Amino acid sequence: MNNIATRPVDTVIAAAPEFLADRITVNDALRQQHARGEDTSTPTLPDAVAFVETTEEVSRLLALCNQHGVPVVAFGAGTSLEGHVNPVRGGISVDLSRMNQVLEVSAEDMDCLIEPGVTRQQLNEYLRDQGLFFPVDPGSHCTIGGMCATRASGTNAVRYGTIRENVLSLEVVLADGRVINTGSRARKASNGYDLTRLLIGSEGTLGIITKVRLRLHGIPEAMSAAVCQFPTLASAVETVITVLQMGIPVARIELLDEVQMQACIAYSKLEGYGAQPTLFLEFHGTKASVAEQAQSVEAVAVENGGSGFAWATDADHRNRLWKARHDAYWAAVAMKPGGRGIATDVCVPISRLAEALLGAKDDIEQSGFSAPIVGHVGDGNFHTVILVENEEPATLAAAWELDKKIVHRALALGGTCSGEHGIGLGKREFLEAEHGLEALAVMRSVKQALDPRGILNPGKIFRN
Amino acid sequence: MNNIATRPVDTVIAAAPEFLADRITVNDALRQQHARGEDTSTPTLPDAVAFVETTEEVSRLLALCNQHGVPVVAFGAGTSLEGHVNPVRGGISVDLSRMNQVLEVSAEDMDCLIEPGVTRQQLNEYLRDQGLFFPVDPGSHCTIGGMCATRASGTNAVRYGTIRENVLSLEVVLADGRVINTGSRARKASNGYDLTRLLIGSEGTLGIITKVRLRLHGIPEAMSAAVCQFPTLASAVETVITVLQMGIPVARIELLDEVQMQACIAYSKLEGYGAQPTLFLEFHGTKASVAEQAQSVEAVAVENGGSGFAWATDADHRNRLWKARHDAYWAAVAMKPGGRGIATDVCVPISRLAEALLGAKDDIEQSGFSAPIVGHVGDGNFHTVILVENEEPATLAAAWELDKKIVHRALALGGTCSGEHGIGLGKREFLEAEHGLEALAVMRSVKQALDPRGILNPGKIFRN
Repeated sequence: MNNIATRPVDTVIAAAPEFLADRITVNDALRQQHARGEDTSTPTLPDAVAFVETTEEVSRLLALCNQHGVPVVAFGAGTSLEGHVNPVRGGISVDLSRMNQVLEVSAEDMDCLIEPGVTRQQLNEYLRDQGLFFPVDPGSHCTIGGMCATRASGTNAVRYGTIRENVLSLEVVLADGRVINTGSRARKASNGYDLTRLLIGSEGTLGIITKVRLRLHGIPEAMSAAVCQFPTLASAVETVITVLQMGIPVARIELLDEVQMQACIAYSKLEGYGAQPTLFLEFHGTKASVAEQAQSVEAVAVENGGSGFAWATDADHRNRLWKARHDAYWAAVAMKPGGRGIATDVCVPISRLAEALLGAKDDIEQSGFSAPIVGHVGDGNFHTVILVENEEPATLAAAWELDKKIVHRALALGGTCSGEHGIGLGKREFLEAEHGLEALAVMRSVKQALDPRGILNPGKIFRN
Repeated sequence: MNNIATRPVDTVIAAAPEFLADRITVNDALRQQHARGEDTSTPTLPDAVAFVETTEEVSRLLALCNQHGVPVVAFGAGTSLEGHVNPVRGGISVDLSRMNQVLEVSAEDMDCLIEPGVTRQQLNEYLRDQGLFFPVDPGSHCTIGGMCATRASGTNAVRYGTIRENVLSLEVVLADGRVINTGSRARKASNGYDLTRLLIGSEGTLGIITKVRLRLHGIPEAMSAAVCQFPTLASAVETVITVLQMGIPVARIELLDEVQMQACIAYSKLEGYGAQPTLFLEFHGTKASVAEQAQSVEAVAVENGGSGFAWATDADHRNRLWKARHDAYWAAVAMKPGGRGIATDVCVPISRLAEALLGAKDDIEQSGFSAPIVGHVGDGNFHTVILVENEEPATLAAAWELDKKIVHRALALGGTCSGEHGIGLGKREFLEAEHGLEALAVMRSVKQALDPRGILNPGKIFRN
């Protein structure tokens, strides 16, 4: 017998091939690919990467890791912006991207059962023929398992809710390998503690999601997109507030500031628009109701100084507009070739949105960084993408200083440090400021109850 | 010193007047009033009733009870149908009905902060002048704190969601008296574990809710109600499925079977309707969209054999119809003067609704009981109100046998034992069948982490 392997993780790596065959690997290139997401955290190599294909494999792997106290980090598409997939304490990166089957679709019930590695594009492609769609749209090529883990949302949340409102139930593997289902196929339930919602947004720290049952929606009879430009950020925000108060069921209402518009015009070759604060809108419904919504919003916008209305009812034009919006992050990053972006993610009560936005712009100006702003303003959520030319410690520290200013203002305005990206590594200190130590202690006691050995994504959400 | 008082609860009763003055009482009539809700559980007297008025009082009382291991049961309006407020292990009934202030309303943010004893009628009365309303409507005169505790919903959930989707955050007193806030005023957040949703539906077993921040909605420009009658239950259900698949944003879509219609016609003096399966509908929106929705639904209904359409756009007529619907439970109970109703509360995938309903009707027929059926069918949720003429053990046992049959069919169809009433005492055995022992073990470990001495509403949700 070879007894050189003494680290617990080596024991796991030696034992796992029994059920994973060659799908657990210490290959350096693969470990590099699992060292972080799209964030700016310092990459850390996992000791091994496991490409799991079944719930049973996840269960056996977790039982093994739990037995030996080895950290486990779930990995989907690697699009996290907050360091979630960075295995800061080593261990096994569990890659779920091969668990990407759509298992069931019910058109009558408008629900489906999928594996966690399914991406939202893949799902919508699959559903199109059945007249159904899955509305939650963070814009990136993320997996739905990752969206559940980070409580993601995006452009459609103002109408269809976040992932939280669109998951019926989950299959989850717990730290010790036990497998649970968190609910039935019923649309609503008052059936004990809401384990579904407890797992959604738990960032891989309470269990690994192996199946997701989603709510779906009928593809609307008609859709129309619109773009409208404003003289000031405040006038654009005022338009949003009025539209929401009138109860107009906008499907999307997105704000881009003048810096972001400039980036998008250059990156996506948007013609006919100026570099000024802009709302991107979308309306879903019957033909008549879509037209009615559009007219009502146009009237409100014009009253607030909006101009340059451009309506797009044909799919091509609409898709081009939304592709430009979805590429906003990449358009921003392209302003600093070779650089990276640090995305803030505050969300405030909508009455405080103008104050939060204008304050952020002041901070940006004082900092010397470029930082375009883009926002899911119907929810009060906006991102500043702080552009760093390099990842030198001093540059990153200055960028995080700016991030901190923007977040603390949002907290002071009754908001949250994260509307949709999650806490991960980068926002841990804000969580204490936001919730207070007592609420954080409750979260810790739940973590302790479900993962007593602390193997699940250690170092995330909590600072220790 | 008088040392006769040796029971822990007596120590609490002796110490509490320090901060509650005479608002803790052992008065027999008051204890009787807090012995159960509107359910058929065997009434149990609390040892005392405490009429709390502030968060601090709740905090001090819980710290005291925790110190002495004395059970605490939160009490709102006493409308629970599942035994939630029955202090089965004695202790203190904490009556929150005096904490009934609306603390803040923001029209711009469409949110409000209230104390838990506020009822939904009281809130909507308060909000009316501001053009806002709170949509979650279980029909009873319940408190919003109680609605949160039981994850309530009702007739508007198909459009506006349940209480779960309409709470932004909670203030909660934990078992040991610590006070936490579960979130910010932001519309959405990815800010650590979702303690708000963990508390919602926890039935007073994890903490006592002392403040609620709610989402509000704008009162729609136009509302219209409709009633349509069908030859069979199946044709009514088929209508519902098609309407939902078409994405028609109905605000309410409620089914009453022929027995329930007979009861309502008698109780609410509804003229011009027959005792046959009936849908009650409501549409919210602009005048044009309401008319469009109504026409679309009428077309679907007619295709499924629906007839006798009656549209009501004026508020009086509409309110009369919905009052009849809301009084359905009392109309049912009135069929057996002096008796009580046991309400089943299953919720199934909508494709299985006809099967669940028709199966329930068979079971009812075989049982010999009268049991009208009324359902929030847009969510797949329906109630059979099993009418018992008396509360003799044999009668109740037979009624529970029928209840059990209906629930087990719903579970086999992928549904839940409770759509909106909660688990309480009556549904504990079903919870195990529904979730499996592993998921239940996770719930228990959360309970253990948050309430290690088990003082919070002991005996509810879990059987031991």
